[in-house]
Amino acid sequence: MHFTSETSSDGVVERRFVLDGVPGMLWHPDGSGLGGRPLVLLGHGGGQDKLGPRERARRCAARFGWAAVAIDAPGHGERARTAQDERFATETGQLLAAGRPISAWVARHTAALAERAVPEWRAVLDALEGAGGEGLGPVGYWGLSLGTVIGIPLAAVEPRIVAAVFGLAGHAALVEPARQVTVPVEFVLQWDDELQPREGALALYGALGSGERSLHANPGGHLAVPEFEVAASEGFLRRHLGCAAPVAD
Amino acid sequence: MHFTSETSSDGVVERRFVLDGVPGMLWHPDGSGLGGRPLVLLGHGGGQDKLGPRERARRCAARFGWAAVAIDAPGHGERARTAQDERFATETGQLLAAGRPISAWVARHTAALAERAVPEWRAVLDALEGAGGEGLGPVGYWGLSLGTVIGIPLAAVEPRIVAAVFGLAGHAALVEPARQVTVPVEFVLQWDDELQPREGALALYGALGSGERSLHANPGGHLAVPEFEVAASEGFLRRHLGCAAPVAD
Repeated sequence: MHFTSETSSDGVVERRFVLDGVPGMLWHPDGSGLGGRPLVLLGHGGGQDKLGPRERARRCAARFGWAAVAIDAPGHGERARTAQDERFATETGQLLAAGRPISAWVARHTAALAERAVPEWRAVLDALEGAGGEGLGPVGYWGLSLGTVIGIPLAAVEPRIVAAVFGLAGHAALVEPARQVTVPVEFVLQWDDELQPREGALALYGALGSGERSLHANPGGHLAVPEFEVAASEGFLRRHLGCAAPVAD
Repeated sequence: MHFTSETSSDGVVERRFVLDGVPGMLWHPDGSGLGGRPLVLLGHGGGQDKLGPRERARRCAARFGWAAVAIDAPGHGERARTAQDERFATETGQLLAAGRPISAWVARHTAALAERAVPEWRAVLDALEGAGGEGLGPVGYWGLSLGTVIGIPLAAVEPRIVAAVFGLAGHAALVEPARQVTVPVEFVLQWDDELQPREGALALYGALGSGERSLHANPGGHLAVPEFEVAASEGFLRRHLGCAAPVAD
């Protein structure tokens, strides 16, 4: 893990890094290391990048004393696009412009993305575990939409993740890995999601193997998750990760 | 409204009352009146009575400074049972013993209960509004199962209710009044509810006319609502009712 820059403002440090060609960003409270601190993996949405969850990351560090980390998903942000990524972007645009459903098409492509992304996230955890010196604190995952398409197969195989916020996804290919997720989950669903049919999302929630799994549904489209659900997701993670020393007011 | 007894412990007053033959219980912080204070109407479940929500009521008063009120539903608690009530209790027991579905049967009977209960709740609000002197603060409703069968038609017609927690219900007869509910709602659903088929509950949530309506679903049966959902319901009501001076620690 090669750190390339570091800035600090309002008590929160932002450190850019590259790991095996994957660019990422690490946040934590100023004047402290990672050791023993709860860590949240923030998975961004499709078309976004590692800076998409920046506001959430800064809140996590400032309010709860957590560290947070995000990486560019394959084909996103600073990463080179493969021919497949280019084709996906072009054809998705064409389907949307034609008013045709994109769910199955997105499902196929993002499942391929997830196969590449899961080992990248695990490598980030390995690197941070080594870098911290004192080891990692409890690890949570928080990512909706593409963040869930990657997060569910990740949580299915990564025992360091102890709680996860998922949602805005319901592709049938996720059902099998969802059965293998056993940690507590909060699952966010938009009742009128134009990108993700409701039935698929309900079925995915139902498939989760977790003993504790809460579905939080609200009216509105894919991008209309209410602000109070962000606070609810934070509260859920706080219940499972605990708090560290937050940034002083 | 005739108050028949008053006790106080741990900073919370409990006052029994009778209004037009309906027995009820009022809770509020000690050493204060009702005036201007948020008020929560607590609807009990089937087979319970006004003391069923007692723990919730005491928490509301102690932690948030709210007043809370509960009344015996028709045929419940200290109230005389009609021949219809007796028949309902007997036949429900027989159906359950025979392992037969009771949902439709319960729906028909509880809809009749609700018709009797709605004007009783409104009379309680009228009486408390008069008794408080300073008028009522914002009013919330919190009741699951039978509490929702009564609460949805109540909230559909009672403009003093500004927010409501419903759930564990999904009878088709509730869909029409649900469309007339426009205040924020948190709707609690048990994914494996043996008394209330999931599809009916999802449809009822979907029918609510409220711009803000959150569905909170969790695994388990009718009686297995997780403790953290109680805290979530309190947080929801707190967001909409505000806080008054709580009981001092």
